Amino acid sequence: MKTLFRNATLLAMDKAHGSTAFAGDLLVSNGRIEAIGPNLAADGARIIDATDKLLMPGLVNAHTHSSETFLRGRYERMPLEIWLLYAYPLLMGPQVDKRLVYLRSALLAMESLKSGVTTLCDDFFDPPGHDIERLACAFSAYEDAGIRANVSSAVMNIHTLDALPYAREIMPEALKAKLDFGPPMPAHAYMDYCGAVFSTLHGRANGRLRFMVAPSAPQRCTADMLQACYALALRHGVPMHTHVLETKTQAVTGPEFYGKSLVAYLHDLGVLGPSTTIAHSVWVSDADIDLVGEAGCSVAHNAISNLKLGAGIAPIRRLLDAGVHIGLGTDGLSSNDTARIFDVMRVAALVQSATGPEFGDWLNAGEVLTMATIGGARTALLEGVTGSLETGKAADLLMLNLNSIGFAPLNDIGKHLVYSENGRSIELVMVDGQIVVENDRMTTIDEAEILAEIRERMPAFQATHAQLERANAIFEPTMAEIHRRATSAEIGFSRYFNGMGQTGAIQT
Amino acid sequence: MKTLFRNATLLAMDKAHGSTAFAGDLLVSNGRIEAIGPNLAADGARIIDATDKLLMPGLVNAHTHSSETFLRGRYERMPLEIWLLYAYPLLMGPQVDKRLVYLRSALLAMESLKSGVTTLCDDFFDPPGHDIERLACAFSAYEDAGIRANVSSAVMNIHTLDALPYAREIMPEALKAKLDFGPPMPAHAYMDYCGAVFSTLHGRANGRLRFMVAPSAPQRCTADMLQACYALALRHGVPMHTHVLETKTQAVTGPEFYGKSLVAYLHDLGVLGPSTTIAHSVWVSDADIDLVGEAGCSVAHNAISNLKLGAGIAPIRRLLDAGVHIGLGTDGLSSNDTARIFDVMRVAALVQSATGPEFGDWLNAGEVLTMATIGGARTALLEGVTGSLETGKAADLLMLNLNSIGFAPLNDIGKHLVYSENGRSIELVMVDGQIVVENDRMTTIDEAEILAEIRERMPAFQATHAQLERANAIFEPTMAEIHRRATSAEIGFSRYFNGMGQTGAIQT
Repeated sequence: MKTLFRNATLLAMDKAHGSTAFAGDLLVSNGRIEAIGPNLAADGARIIDATDKLLMPGLVNAHTHSSETFLRGRYERMPLEIWLLYAYPLLMGPQVDKRLVYLRSALLAMESLKSGVTTLCDDFFDPPGHDIERLACAFSAYEDAGIRANVSSAVMNIHTLDALPYAREIMPEALKAKLDFGPPMPAHAYMDYCGAVFSTLHGRANGRLRFMVAPSAPQRCTADMLQACYALALRHGVPMHTHVLETKTQAVTGPEFYGKSLVAYLHDLGVLGPSTTIAHSVWVSDADIDLVGEAGCSVAHNAISNLKLGAGIAPIRRLLDAGVHIGLGTDGLSSNDTARIFDVMRVAALVQSATGPEFGDWLNAGEVLTMATIGGARTALLEGVTGSLETGKAADLLMLNLNSIGFAPLNDIGKHLVYSENGRSIELVMVDGQIVVENDRMTTIDEAEILAEIRERMPAFQATHAQLERANAIFEPTMAEIHRRATSAEIGFSRYFNGMGQTGAIQT
Repeated sequence: MKTLFRNATLLAMDKAHGSTAFAGDLLVSNGRIEAIGPNLAADGARIIDATDKLLMPGLVNAHTHSSETFLRGRYERMPLEIWLLYAYPLLMGPQVDKRLVYLRSALLAMESLKSGVTTLCDDFFDPPGHDIERLACAFSAYEDAGIRANVSSAVMNIHTLDALPYAREIMPEALKAKLDFGPPMPAHAYMDYCGAVFSTLHGRANGRLRFMVAPSAPQRCTADMLQACYALALRHGVPMHTHVLETKTQAVTGPEFYGKSLVAYLHDLGVLGPSTTIAHSVWVSDADIDLVGEAGCSVAHNAISNLKLGAGIAPIRRLLDAGVHIGLGTDGLSSNDTARIFDVMRVAALVQSATGPEFGDWLNAGEVLTMATIGGARTALLEGVTGSLETGKAADLLMLNLNSIGFAPLNDIGKHLVYSENGRSIELVMVDGQIVVENDRMTTIDEAEILAEIRERMPAFQATHAQLERANAIFEPTMAEIHRRATSAEIGFSRYFNGMGQTGAIQT
């Protein structure tokens, strides 16, 4: 089956063109881009007239969590440490059933695809354990929807009280007693589990779906777990996907527990390398940035989620200067509320200006588009497969209408994409050569049916979740105090607007 | 002609309900909301089934400039003072013809309406002069599109070199010599002009279109001009709409020229009052905030534009605490790139968290929705007409599909609207009782025809504008130096991330 896009405007995001558009045809054959150039022969292909249309790579969501999909629109004005209590309750309830795991993943995939995301990295988290049948439900949803995905099964094996600074000191004894999660998972057990996933789910759907290794965060896993994860990731050529220095609380965590920053800790464990993908990287110090850059790590920058959880503004210009590969992530829908990378692009571009008046340091549209496409693919170790329009790569692409209002009048395609477009001009989305969205309609699965089933299931889910929230609210004062104490600490730099509270007064 | 929305979910934004949704019917009669309540009698009305639909007030764009509409997607990484050179060239070219004035206004109106904005405040700027026939073209476009609008004809009568700090010192003599704008407009001449507009264009389209008085900025107008404008605005019950303290350069402007902040200057001139609407208000000091609050002024907060131009983050919590009325504006499409207030809502909500870890100070969805609706209406002095769903008010409203992906699953309508919705769920837009958008289609004007005409006219427009850009580039080094010098000045507070450059180091 071949498809020929005739007479398109192409934004290839490859090395030769970057974000500079050019005219041409694009031929898809057997799921791959077979040729790009002027006046390609049709050769029996289905011909799509792409006059006044833009062809660009599908976007990559470098970091999200499908488990949060049903929690969108539920929280606000909570720093991460408080929000975690409710989105990932410490006192857990019963797990949602497998059908809900499928539905929440399908919903995430549908919204992603309809808004131009063709690859997502789902840091699947399913406490308290790891169950391959439940994980398989997410894989099935992504297979059915037709999206490309890296899916993890996030692990932590250190007790919450030992992963949060000041917690043992601040938390009342009665509350500590409630936090018994049973014996921690040893590294070898997680390795066994991952081995089973690699031999069953990894590579499903013609290789479109992959597994990635995901120790949740350095302070939440033992050293041997981190090292085993890193070795396993290297062995399978998949990312080791982890959370590092999202909040200031995490910035004081390293010194508190290890006598050094969390990045230095990872470095000293030997687990920073080109396969290491760090979500967030907001509270990295200058020395951390150097370490991450020298190791050739990737960072998934979640510009919207970082603002939603009040984590501060990530030092993206400095990370770029250090040679770090950067992708854009939405993060979960409970700390972002949408799966739209177009939105993250715009906010990522805009918010860097708040760091100061040096406009040479602000991001430009080409840099942001790179993060959303080939940069994101790199964070997923999929840069040889997707993220740019190049011969031999998978046909993961979007066709947008350049005659839509957002491009009226057309001044500069890259800037329109970053600052104006929100996915509304998308007319067609293709993944692996298959058209999965056409004229705002999913071709692979029945959107209305899935939405209807979700609506039917939600009252019970929401009632249960509200009960969990009430139960976990007992920890809120402790978390608020940890946040207060951590954010008051003097660590020599700040990722907030200023380190001095709300009046904007500069400390002198 | 009557319309009955049956079985809706209502977000009224009135005093009684705020942003708390409730169920009911809504009856529109002769352009007004005649009744809201359960089981209203149809009484011959057209019935629209609003089951699973949300009815909410149309959004108010409290500050924009139609003159920039053709410049969207053209600039980035420029602080205001440099960007102004290109978007509002100092060395002017020929004015665009009247048809282009119509087309750019029609484009702005179409994008506004299709994305849920039913009222816009267009700070119309048409240098070098004031021409009622050209202004009438904007009025005609808004009349044809069916939008509600306040339209100004912005005035300045102080030479650029006397409105920019350090300019006379920094700018080379040869460049200064090029800046001759002829004799400044005296206040009485502007009053005569405004008088003519009040007696002809003001009140057009059944009162839907109004004129507002707009001295561009305190430093750009003489004291007698500011005072005459204020008196005129009071006499006609329209806002005095002006720009104050958008950038740090403007923060040093007041002390430089008047020995006090620009807000204190306006206060001492007696022109701060409930009819004074201030665009931006980013670099207001604590004392300024008190003055603006005590005077009962309004502020149009342009969260996205402020980031695009690197102006910093406005102290919205403090302005709210001081009792300032706040609306949301996109600002012009050259510093924002879209006319979507939904986008401004989300960014306005998110970016306040970057000001610091005190999460009690971050904005909540209800506050942001208030700004986008009734708060915006207040900034336009239209709070008795629009901005909430109340009996007797104009029927300016949106109907959104609550079964769309952005609301799946529905957790909290207000939070979904602010953090998730982007206008894509809008099924119907009504202004003054007339359905102007239905299923993403304008009912009033032919969108495709207008877009086609714009595309046809753009190559010539863009070529001329590019020539202007080249001519004005000679001023860029001067403007960059003014920006550098102003942003380096110590003024006791900061609206940037921190006042200390990019490393995030806190001054100690």
